Amino acid sequence: MTLDDFSQYARRRVDHYLTQNLKKYEPATQLQSAMAYSLFNGGKRVRPMLTYASASLFGEVNTLTDASAAAIESIHAYSLIHDDLPAMDNDDLRRGKPTCHKQYDEATAILAGDALQTFAFELLSTPEHHETAIQLQLIQELVHASGRHGMVTGQMIDLANVGKGINIEALEQMHQHKTGALIRASVRMGAISTGAKDNKDLAAIDAYANAIGLAFQVQDDIIDITSDTATLGKTQFSDEDANKPTYPKLLGLDGAQTLAQQLHDQAIDAISPFGDTAQPLVELASYIIGRNH
Amino acid sequence: MTLDDFSQYARRRVDHYLTQNLKKYEPATQLQSAMAYSLFNGGKRVRPMLTYASASLFGEVNTLTDASAAAIESIHAYSLIHDDLPAMDNDDLRRGKPTCHKQYDEATAILAGDALQTFAFELLSTPEHHETAIQLQLIQELVHASGRHGMVTGQMIDLANVGKGINIEALEQMHQHKTGALIRASVRMGAISTGAKDNKDLAAIDAYANAIGLAFQVQDDIIDITSDTATLGKTQFSDEDANKPTYPKLLGLDGAQTLAQQLHDQAIDAISPFGDTAQPLVELASYIIGRNH
Repeated sequence: MTLDDFSQYARRRVDHYLTQNLKKYEPATQLQSAMAYSLFNGGKRVRPMLTYASASLFGEVNTLTDASAAAIESIHAYSLIHDDLPAMDNDDLRRGKPTCHKQYDEATAILAGDALQTFAFELLSTPEHHETAIQLQLIQELVHASGRHGMVTGQMIDLANVGKGINIEALEQMHQHKTGALIRASVRMGAISTGAKDNKDLAAIDAYANAIGLAFQVQDDIIDITSDTATLGKTQFSDEDANKPTYPKLLGLDGAQTLAQQLHDQAIDAISPFGDTAQPLVELASYIIGRNH
Repeated sequence: MTLDDFSQYARRRVDHYLTQNLKKYEPATQLQSAMAYSLFNGGKRVRPMLTYASASLFGEVNTLTDASAAAIESIHAYSLIHDDLPAMDNDDLRRGKPTCHKQYDEATAILAGDALQTFAFELLSTPEHHETAIQLQLIQELVHASGRHGMVTGQMIDLANVGKGINIEALEQMHQHKTGALIRASVRMGAISTGAKDNKDLAAIDAYANAIGLAFQVQDDIIDITSDTATLGKTQFSDEDANKPTYPKLLGLDGAQTLAQQLHDQAIDAISPFGDTAQPLVELASYIIGRNH
């Protein structure tokens, strides 16, 4: 399967699962419209791709893999809605379209984000899976990646750093929380959904996930200054304008590109024991540092 | 045990459990400070009281009861933070103290609310409970009560109703979502934590929970016009000022008081089969329609 085919496969599966589970509930019509607007806004579905690719290393992709991919996308969508709010990054555009609070209003955006977080835990806890121990483990993984030990704290650190000169270690700590934790969870939860049980199983993919999580962010910083606004779907130089610390600022553009390449190589090394079954993860690592939007 | 003693017992247990589990995490210092500010702001802990009282009908109160009570308070605290935001109800005071976004800032308040929601699911999913099936059932209950089938949709309906003349059925539907669902979950989760398994076990306490959930809201509307600002800890007539529909507006003050009394009697009837063990729930129902703040 080419990366393009794999991307379509992951998107089709996760979108189908999300649609099926966001069933119509009459009193919540407007709320669910805002939730769906943000869930299906043309995102690249990188996290679901990681989840499905990682799952296939340990067994047959199953409904718990779907639930994991869908739950992670739901958390990701909620975080984008809240990060875009006027009190946070104050962004009007997301992937070329109005952000949720621009399309609806601020109150609806806050509540749609809140409900998307709950929806993630709904997807993982639904009794139809009949796998209580694994479901609970998946919930613990998602909690750890998205709450105060992960993503939310990353956003707090990010906001606190605007306009400040920070060093490379502090920048890395911010990204490990803000985006790294959920990318790591995407990989770990995929593996757990198909039977990876202990730390030995998870150690190799953890090393992979940590490296590409950081590479993803380094590349994000690079394309913020090398791609134009039309390609990005958001304003070029938006990090620059917001006076945010970035890798190119700390390391220079060449230095940042070298770092992205090193992280890519580390990621590939980590999963080499899996041989050919890890091919989608290898291609994903290359895609992550090759993308221009 | 008097209601006062029981209130202290419930507060001590839930506060201890919350404190123990909100362990210091260095990168999240400011975030956790805002979370704790809102978790320990002098709330009445009505929901934990319901959880412990309901739990004791089915068995010995245990650590899953503590986790349920703490998770519900965490969801309740997050909802108050977000409801108070400028884009929502825009309240400066909560229980006589600055609201979270006034004490900190808007971004911190949004993120503290987000993290408190995740914290609720952390409390219920932690592996130390060793009761995966029950834990998963508790998570499903909390999801249903707080997400798009419950609380969040209640707040959406509430915001949509400002300045509109609605009828009593629409008002009831709003409250069933906004506050009723979580009160019902408080009672149900307590029962499930000590072994209530099927719908027969839960039917009686469900009827109780539905009645006091609504009574709670009717009484809230009553005290908004009968208590002064100092007693309320928030601005008197705040619902009146916000041009929100209330029970006294639709039924008159006498009519609203009669309804509260009827709901109280329904609640007591529903749990009469439990005899003396239900005494705390009986006293809680009386407290709910007797309170003046």
